[in-house]
Amino acid sequence: MASEFDLIDRYFKRVAPAGMVGVGDDCALFGVPAGMQVATSTDLLIEGRHFFPDVDPRALGHKALAVNVSDLAAMGARPIGCLLGLALPEAREFWLAAFAQGFHAMADQAGCPLIGGDTTGNPGALAISVTVFGAVRPEAALRRDAARVGDDIWVSGTLGDADIAYRLLGGHMPADAALLARTRTALEWPQPRYTLGPALAGVAHAAIDVSDGLLQDLGHILKASGVGARLAWDAMPVSSALAGLPPARVRHAVLAGGDVYELCFTAPADRADAIRRIGAECGVAVSRIGAVDAGGQLVVLDADGTPLRDLPRGFDHFRSS
Amino acid sequence: MASEFDLIDRYFKRVAPAGMVGVGDDCALFGVPAGMQVATSTDLLIEGRHFFPDVDPRALGHKALAVNVSDLAAMGARPIGCLLGLALPEAREFWLAAFAQGFHAMADQAGCPLIGGDTTGNPGALAISVTVFGAVRPEAALRRDAARVGDDIWVSGTLGDADIAYRLLGGHMPADAALLARTRTALEWPQPRYTLGPALAGVAHAAIDVSDGLLQDLGHILKASGVGARLAWDAMPVSSALAGLPPARVRHAVLAGGDVYELCFTAPADRADAIRRIGAECGVAVSRIGAVDAGGQLVVLDADGTPLRDLPRGFDHFRSS
Repeated sequence: MASEFDLIDRYFKRVAPAGMVGVGDDCALFGVPAGMQVATSTDLLIEGRHFFPDVDPRALGHKALAVNVSDLAAMGARPIGCLLGLALPEAREFWLAAFAQGFHAMADQAGCPLIGGDTTGNPGALAISVTVFGAVRPEAALRRDAARVGDDIWVSGTLGDADIAYRLLGGHMPADAALLARTRTALEWPQPRYTLGPALAGVAHAAIDVSDGLLQDLGHILKASGVGARLAWDAMPVSSALAGLPPARVRHAVLAGGDVYELCFTAPADRADAIRRIGAECGVAVSRIGAVDAGGQLVVLDADGTPLRDLPRGFDHFRSS
Repeated sequence: MASEFDLIDRYFKRVAPAGMVGVGDDCALFGVPAGMQVATSTDLLIEGRHFFPDVDPRALGHKALAVNVSDLAAMGARPIGCLLGLALPEAREFWLAAFAQGFHAMADQAGCPLIGGDTTGNPGALAISVTVFGAVRPEAALRRDAARVGDDIWVSGTLGDADIAYRLLGGHMPADAALLARTRTALEWPQPRYTLGPALAGVAHAAIDVSDGLLQDLGHILKASGVGARLAWDAMPVSSALAGLPPARVRHAVLAGGDVYELCFTAPADRADAIRRIGAECGVAVSRIGAVDAGGQLVVLDADGTPLRDLPRGFDHFRSS
């Protein structure tokens, strides 16, 4: 059997992109365009905590990178590259090949090549660390503390799918193969908005990616910016896959469901046309779901303008901190 | 008891250094001086694999960052900042406080502040990921493939201590409290050469930090550069703490002992005076231990010029990736 080193070389060592030093030196090297800063984010994912042990390794490779690329997008940063750390219980060639395939496909798609990393054996559970780098003009970065009173609040894509799939897979909802088939891709193959995010830099004010649930993540923006917000339930881009589910279930999935990786962002009201044009150019639906106000509250209004009561808070799925 | 979030905030959330966005946004942001590239490296450390479960958490915090700062030094890069991922079996406040103290002290010392990270619970073993960033002029970076025939080969500091301490702690040598007391600091509190490394950029050719053993790590340089080397045993900076140990034990510790984090580097022979001056300015001993040649071999000569036989190869200590 091939040694662990050989397997790593086979599946993870690629030729470094032009202008970079890649896997195989003490450090990877990369440049940043003049006037731009480096945006960086890291995730540490543990089997049994952040993903099901029997998850498709190709999907896991995709998602491990996708959720980090999503952080770049939420900052308005264009991807540069990434680092991968893997602590493997055993060198399973089949598993590594599939994981690497999913990871590299996401990297190629987002223009975020693997430029370095660290691999090791591990007597315990599989652990995966991913660090991403991007470039952004600091004055245009989409910071959490940049929401302003009067801003519109927007969200990309549709909401609710991933939460339903998670509940079905975890046995927290009655088995429903057709519903799982409609929602599972959203949970296991999230599409980070790496084109939309950088396109919004300099137009939108604040942004965050929806990882813990819309209300909780928007709450981070409101808290950091010292503002409140009113959202309109009727404006929410509810996934069509949720048709027929009980209204309370839908509301919870849309407002509190995590693992979404759509962007929630605020922008001046007079830039609404620009936001719609950017969405169209990026091929991503964008929905105006509310507005920032000076209150300290986050309320969701129904069609009659009545605040919804007992709003679900975001919860943590796999990622409880 | 304080929640995990509170503990993380208490011990890891610091005010971001000027010009950076720190912990608390989707990404951390940092700038790079004009004409410089970003050097980056990541390590994923697992309890029971890379460190003893009962290690002093303050020392562990120090070392987790130190070994990554050492990678920057080996590239000739000046530290900018770092990211930390922690997967904790439980939120032990005492442990976190001590780990954070050791980590921040190393960060302050090396000018490598914590600017972001990820923390999570973990049902299994403690896992730590550290990613560091530094700045280096790409044309001056100390790359592994840059050694040239005729270069001198140098090593910083002294060699042998960490290997002996590891063997004593692991029960692979008869207990010797006095010897352990003399060698343990080298293993648990390695001092990365973050001043020497950047000072060598543009003067030295190739460099690596000695993590797996001098012969093995120098071997990486030779292989990447397509050259060979002859070393002089008598020129090796053997730690004085090893006095009285059997010669074979000393030889193994010096030539193959890992976890050292001294720099091994090559430089043109006519820059020897400059190297010595840089070492003196950085307060780090530097020893010329051999020269690069055109052969494909790595030989070590004794005082008579006879090649040592049965050279120990580097081995992996904790890090057998």
